[in-house]
Amino acid sequence: MTAPTGSPGLLKPALAAIQADIDASFDALLPLPGDPRDRLVQAMRYATIGGGKRLRPLLVTATAAMYGVDRQVAVRAGTALEAIHVYSLIHDDLPCMDNDDLRHGKPTVHKAFDDGTAVLAGDALHDFAFEILSDPAMSGDPFVRVELIRTLAVNSGTNGMAGGQMMDIVAETATFDLPTVTRLQQLKTGALLAAAVEMGAILGRLPPEGRTHLRGYARDIGLAFQIADDLLDAEGDEAAAGKALRKDAVAGKETFVSLLGVERAREQARILVDQAIAHLGSHGSEADLLRELARFIVERNH
Amino acid sequence: MTAPTGSPGLLKPALAAIQADIDASFDALLPLPGDPRDRLVQAMRYATIGGGKRLRPLLVTATAAMYGVDRQVAVRAGTALEAIHVYSLIHDDLPCMDNDDLRHGKPTVHKAFDDGTAVLAGDALHDFAFEILSDPAMSGDPFVRVELIRTLAVNSGTNGMAGGQMMDIVAETATFDLPTVTRLQQLKTGALLAAAVEMGAILGRLPPEGRTHLRGYARDIGLAFQIADDLLDAEGDEAAAGKALRKDAVAGKETFVSLLGVERAREQARILVDQAIAHLGSHGSEADLLRELARFIVERNH
Repeated sequence: MTAPTGSPGLLKPALAAIQADIDASFDALLPLPGDPRDRLVQAMRYATIGGGKRLRPLLVTATAAMYGVDRQVAVRAGTALEAIHVYSLIHDDLPCMDNDDLRHGKPTVHKAFDDGTAVLAGDALHDFAFEILSDPAMSGDPFVRVELIRTLAVNSGTNGMAGGQMMDIVAETATFDLPTVTRLQQLKTGALLAAAVEMGAILGRLPPEGRTHLRGYARDIGLAFQIADDLLDAEGDEAAAGKALRKDAVAGKETFVSLLGVERAREQARILVDQAIAHLGSHGSEADLLRELARFIVERNH
Repeated sequence: MTAPTGSPGLLKPALAAIQADIDASFDALLPLPGDPRDRLVQAMRYATIGGGKRLRPLLVTATAAMYGVDRQVAVRAGTALEAIHVYSLIHDDLPCMDNDDLRHGKPTVHKAFDDGTAVLAGDALHDFAFEILSDPAMSGDPFVRVELIRTLAVNSGTNGMAGGQMMDIVAETATFDLPTVTRLQQLKTGALLAAAVEMGAILGRLPPEGRTHLRGYARDIGLAFQIADDLLDAEGDEAAAGKALRKDAVAGKETFVSLLGVERAREQARILVDQAIAHLGSHGSEADLLRELARFIVERNH
């Protein structure tokens, strides 16, 4: 193990590799059934293949790799997690939710298909995640499978992503203070990022008491990620983002930027990234990819 | 063991007991968080507590009881299954799906709350099912937990309920023949009923090769159930049903009744029930509740 000097240049190839692997994984795991359900699977494939940065799967594989986990095993778990992320985007984009027409620079699922198909494609991807995690092909050890499932279910339900989305709807008519916005974002965005790191640790057979530093890392990058998102929403370029921006301001929702101002929000994100990297202090170069990922989260332009 | 003479009178108290137990289970497992997520949990409670016949949980407990499974364990698994059933009803009732205003005689979730909350409440119930099945409180054996999860995920996704719902949407613009309508209904309705019996068998530690007769029973009552539903839709009373009827005819969808006619459909349902009961021939009186349930499925008036 060498000292954690950081090695810029790990991230770009790692992102390219995970994007290719996740695309290939969805392609292989979502074959067309060849009957009237084809429309459903076409919508699932449209939403999952060829879009997104795949940050969550990369967090799974980068964490798992620190503990010597076989890459294809980690990619499979990352595919399940990404399926949950994508299902939430499909439902979030619906007219009765955020009503977005564009996602990753192409029409949203309900625009390319129809609202009913979008609801069902989200629902079916939701099941798909638990289907592939519960498959014996995921792990020969049922305890590993059930721990992965539990981590994902808890972090996507009422006490995770869905709870955060509900708070986000309430935010349109309520005025939230900084602690409440922080809680909202920890649930809405942070929970799945935390699940990614946790799933990598589960695959790495790290006992819960050995995961404290990774949980600290995940919590800090989760919050930094959302602050960066708010900054991009306030200042970013719609073409680069591939989606509509400045919707929070229009909807009258409080964000980190509206509550802290641009400068303090940017400073807070930087502090959180430093803190996240500090959590990895016990690791050598095997954690360099996680370190680069933390920096990327606040420096990305989309 | 006595001969399977049938013992009318088991079903009514069993239905009352499972309805009370499932209500109590949702009540205990869905506490209000006491923050802006309350609205989400209120919608989940509104949809799950105090409505429905609870046929699926009863199939779980009745099957599990044949193998000496503790009732509270079976009720917990039945609660997860019912959560999946209820989430599918919430999404199915949405304006972009079936657009129903009434369910179990009260306003549907999107009517009582709003469309966005209904989407999220369905999504959160979907997670809730996997949360409670993956909890160590479900079973000390991770293999039992993961088998329950796998059974539920496979039967609710593309190759189960969601696949059937997609076929149902396609049915509005296509003309399906009897084999295709049968396949549609096996997925849309039959899959979750099959999952109920399978989950009871998993809890009973019955090896897969010992479940063949139960799978035959489940397949036959699943189809009989849907034929009975089509008959009720064609001939039933909206007040007793607590929901809108004759929507299939209006939407131009083929059903067992439109394809077979009322008399042949009724005859087919009777044959299927007899067949279902014949699958239980190796059992004594411990299977009487499953036998009564099979008969009830075609004789119910809502």
